[in-house]
Amino acid sequence: MALVYISPWSDANLWRQQVARHLPGEELRVWPDVGDARAIDVALVWKPPHGALATLPNLKLIANLGAGVEHLMADPALPRHVPMTRLVHPLMTEQMSEYCALGVMMGLRRVAEYMASQRAGQWVAREADVAPPSQRAVGVLGLGELGGDTARKLAALGYQVHGWSRSPRDLPGIACHHGRDGLDAMLGACDAVVCLLPLTTATRGIIDRRFLGRLKPGAILVNAARGAHVVDDDLLAALDDGRVGFALLDVFYDEPLPAGHRYWSHPRVMITPHIAALTLPVMADVILANVKRLRAGQPLVDQVDPTRGY
Amino acid sequence: MALVYISPWSDANLWRQQVARHLPGEELRVWPDVGDARAIDVALVWKPPHGALATLPNLKLIANLGAGVEHLMADPALPRHVPMTRLVHPLMTEQMSEYCALGVMMGLRRVAEYMASQRAGQWVAREADVAPPSQRAVGVLGLGELGGDTARKLAALGYQVHGWSRSPRDLPGIACHHGRDGLDAMLGACDAVVCLLPLTTATRGIIDRRFLGRLKPGAILVNAARGAHVVDDDLLAALDDGRVGFALLDVFYDEPLPAGHRYWSHPRVMITPHIAALTLPVMADVILANVKRLRAGQPLVDQVDPTRGY
Repeated sequence: MALVYISPWSDANLWRQQVARHLPGEELRVWPDVGDARAIDVALVWKPPHGALATLPNLKLIANLGAGVEHLMADPALPRHVPMTRLVHPLMTEQMSEYCALGVMMGLRRVAEYMASQRAGQWVAREADVAPPSQRAVGVLGLGELGGDTARKLAALGYQVHGWSRSPRDLPGIACHHGRDGLDAMLGACDAVVCLLPLTTATRGIIDRRFLGRLKPGAILVNAARGAHVVDDDLLAALDDGRVGFALLDVFYDEPLPAGHRYWSHPRVMITPHIAALTLPVMADVILANVKRLRAGQPLVDQVDPTRGY
Repeated sequence: MALVYISPWSDANLWRQQVARHLPGEELRVWPDVGDARAIDVALVWKPPHGALATLPNLKLIANLGAGVEHLMADPALPRHVPMTRLVHPLMTEQMSEYCALGVMMGLRRVAEYMASQRAGQWVAREADVAPPSQRAVGVLGLGELGGDTARKLAALGYQVHGWSRSPRDLPGIACHHGRDGLDAMLGACDAVVCLLPLTTATRGIIDRRFLGRLKPGAILVNAARGAHVVDDDLLAALDDGRVGFALLDVFYDEPLPAGHRYWSHPRVMITPHIAALTLPVMADVILANVKRLRAGQPLVDQVDPTRGY
């Protein structure tokens, strides 16, 4: 049997090296040059073209090369009977927590304002804005691997940390909330909010006018999950009127963010090109370990629950 | 006996309120309106004019309203027999650690470069620059209250943390170094360096050409201690040639930073107006507790050792 690599990225050679290293003797083919499709039982995928996976009749494992699987779930021809895994790697989690903490701190410490002062040659202390971390509350949306780690690290930095998840959770040192009522209660308490939710039908567009209207004036928003969590027009209105004081955005409804989109030039927005947590070749060990488990008849890890959507 | 407040800041009323609250019945005078100088036994000071303290013949306590006492130590007329305390407050430490972690993360995550891309309308991922925190080493200069807390929090964020101090220290989870040899060894290992040293004859100008020449190419520098720790021409040369990839500077040889100084406009520099850790009125409790101890004949805390200079 053989593996196939299906991705818009042109880094197939990196993956060929990793397969040679971790799965010596296995054959890696690169989409669309699949040869005899019946020989393929494992697909390593990142945003595969919709319909591609349905052409592989003997597929036993779909291994997603990132954490988010919403692109797969949106494929009408997705072979849903095939086990699907997603990448949960400590080195990805670390990057994500670093990025989210950076966004929270940039907002709370008024980096955009101080940079504007610097450009204007003005030495202006914003003393009225000062509050030590223990007097600041930060809310984390999503308390899985990524959100849980971010919450824990924000707490270690001294912030009051709240967390919100679909189902009840209990994390030491984190004020945990769940459900729609829990979200509403949490938002009003937070000086900053970090979105690390999976993208599902329940979370699409969750950061809308209603959500933003519950925030403290001047609150900070970090979105490192998916662009479709945000209703862009609603966020732009909240940025315009100052309800949101600063937003660090890594993900967008369309990527690359289209030229001329107001996020590019909004003075309260910093954008990054979907780099909060990159899949590095060194993470291949975790992904390919599931291939080994498949071959050995062992249970897979980090498997996606198609009914939950993550 | 009476207290006197001596500071270039015009916030005497804030301190009058705090004295009324924590030391009811005590009288607070405001320099230069001291009345009978013989009645004053406590001076609450921030950068008092040199010579001022020598005019108070019955002084029993000089309470500095910040952490750094180098301005006092530089007063040729300083009454050195009078006990001197400095402000060590958890809410100040928290602010400082937040600021330093922010600078490290801004540098390592290439905020200046991503902001430049954003201004240019360019969607460019800098994948070659990516390394998760556990693969990054950060060095903290100074391991007292401030440096120790910063080091501990950087370690909690997942960085490999090194620390350097005058005398040997032992902090859990931190690779501790001391002495000139220890410094040289540490610098070459670090992706980022944070300066939280006291300013003494031994540390003045420590960040010079020799120091900067030992850093990894593109290293990050955060200075939240004193401007005089840095030889500005040497740092500017290192910024120009990219040896230092990003510097977050809160303190300067002259403050406010003079108009036209190259730090104002250097693309690799972010400056802030000495706001990394502000003394807040709420911190008066810790400062005034030493006045209570003096009155009660109890030992002072956070006392300065004039021979060390901090």
